[in-house]
Amino acid sequence: MSKETRSSHTVNRIIEASLELFNSQGERAVSTNHIAAHLHMSPGNLYYHFANKDEIIVQLFKRYSSEMFDYLANKPLPESVSQTTAYMRGVYDVMWKYRFLYSDVNTLLNRSADLLGKHNEFTRERIAPLLVKLLAQLRDKGVLTGIDETGLNDLSINMWLITKYWFDFDTSLRGPDRQAEPAKQRGVYRTLSLLRPYLDTAHLPEFDAAMQGLNLS
Amino acid sequence: MSKETRSSHTVNRIIEASLELFNSQGERAVSTNHIAAHLHMSPGNLYYHFANKDEIIVQLFKRYSSEMFDYLANKPLPESVSQTTAYMRGVYDVMWKYRFLYSDVNTLLNRSADLLGKHNEFTRERIAPLLVKLLAQLRDKGVLTGIDETGLNDLSINMWLITKYWFDFDTSLRGPDRQAEPAKQRGVYRTLSLLRPYLDTAHLPEFDAAMQGLNLS
Repeated sequence: MSKETRSSHTVNRIIEASLELFNSQGERAVSTNHIAAHLHMSPGNLYYHFANKDEIIVQLFKRYSSEMFDYLANKPLPESVSQTTAYMRGVYDVMWKYRFLYSDVNTLLNRSADLLGKHNEFTRERIAPLLVKLLAQLRDKGVLTGIDETGLNDLSINMWLITKYWFDFDTSLRGPDRQAEPAKQRGVYRTLSLLRPYLDTAHLPEFDAAMQGLNLS
Repeated sequence: MSKETRSSHTVNRIIEASLELFNSQGERAVSTNHIAAHLHMSPGNLYYHFANKDEIIVQLFKRYSSEMFDYLANKPLPESVSQTTAYMRGVYDVMWKYRFLYSDVNTLLNRSADLLGKHNEFTRERIAPLLVKLLAQLRDKGVLTGIDETGLNDLSINMWLITKYWFDFDTSLRGPDRQAEPAKQRGVYRTLSLLRPYLDTAHLPEFDAAMQGLNLS
């Protein structure tokens, strides 16, 4: 291996070990020394690549936003209840992979102006407009009915808020050791429950069946 | 002053200074040394009363839950749209006073089993059933219509989740230096927006007028 390859290999190992430790133990409890020890690496070697923990977090945030963006850019917007469920499951898959970002969210972001800038930009410019487009499409396809502009706007903000805090809320009820799959599927249920009052009655049985098909326990 | 009075006076000063510092700077950024310095007190004097920061947080949590419980126990359940708005404003007043508990919520609670125990008990045994009762009453009074048991259950969980994370979400959009009154009233709007799709059409103009009467900017 060339020196550059070895170096990028080490960077990658540090980032992946950090993700694993942050997710399992919480970012706050994990120091750069923990990460180095976990990799049987000297702290000096880690510092050669990252000056501090925030620099690792920034890299993880970049990976998260690029994976989420790729998903959203390539997945067609849903046109039916079952497509909506599948679509949200994909969103929760990416979120679960980087779930440490979604617990202790603002404390993390407040410590890093760099990260906060990226996060606000990502959410405001990429996610929020997409959510409004998704909901408008479901309305145009007749899945959602009787929803006015106030309702559409409220719905998009409430869906975003509930999705953002889902893992934190679920942890508070179930403890940190819950299983991945039900935690994600409970999140899909919780987010989509906001659509239910706006569903055309013709779509309600399909919706309730889709919700009952989720593994929530 | 007797020795006991002096001691309880000091305890009180420590608790109140901690609340002020936690709210303004975030609990994570404030150490017991900061609190002692803020009070022109020696760290030793502070440690005489509290062995560590978590003990102060537990006392603040007790004050918060007792104030919230007093409010909920004494305020009659709302029977109309305007009473519902006033009721939620009171809830947000208590939350704002102890808002540090509502940012970084789970990291805080995960560090303290004592605190977590109390929090789960408080939320599950006191708040959740009251919310279901409140919604059932609004349905019985004809304010909410066409809501089935699934809808009622989802609504109570979604209202609780959105209320719990409101200040954190609002901070992420507006920054930590936002004004108290609009932050609380935006929260009231956000929580009550979940009721809107279930409102009887006869109550919709009253609801929208109440929402427009809130100071959101």
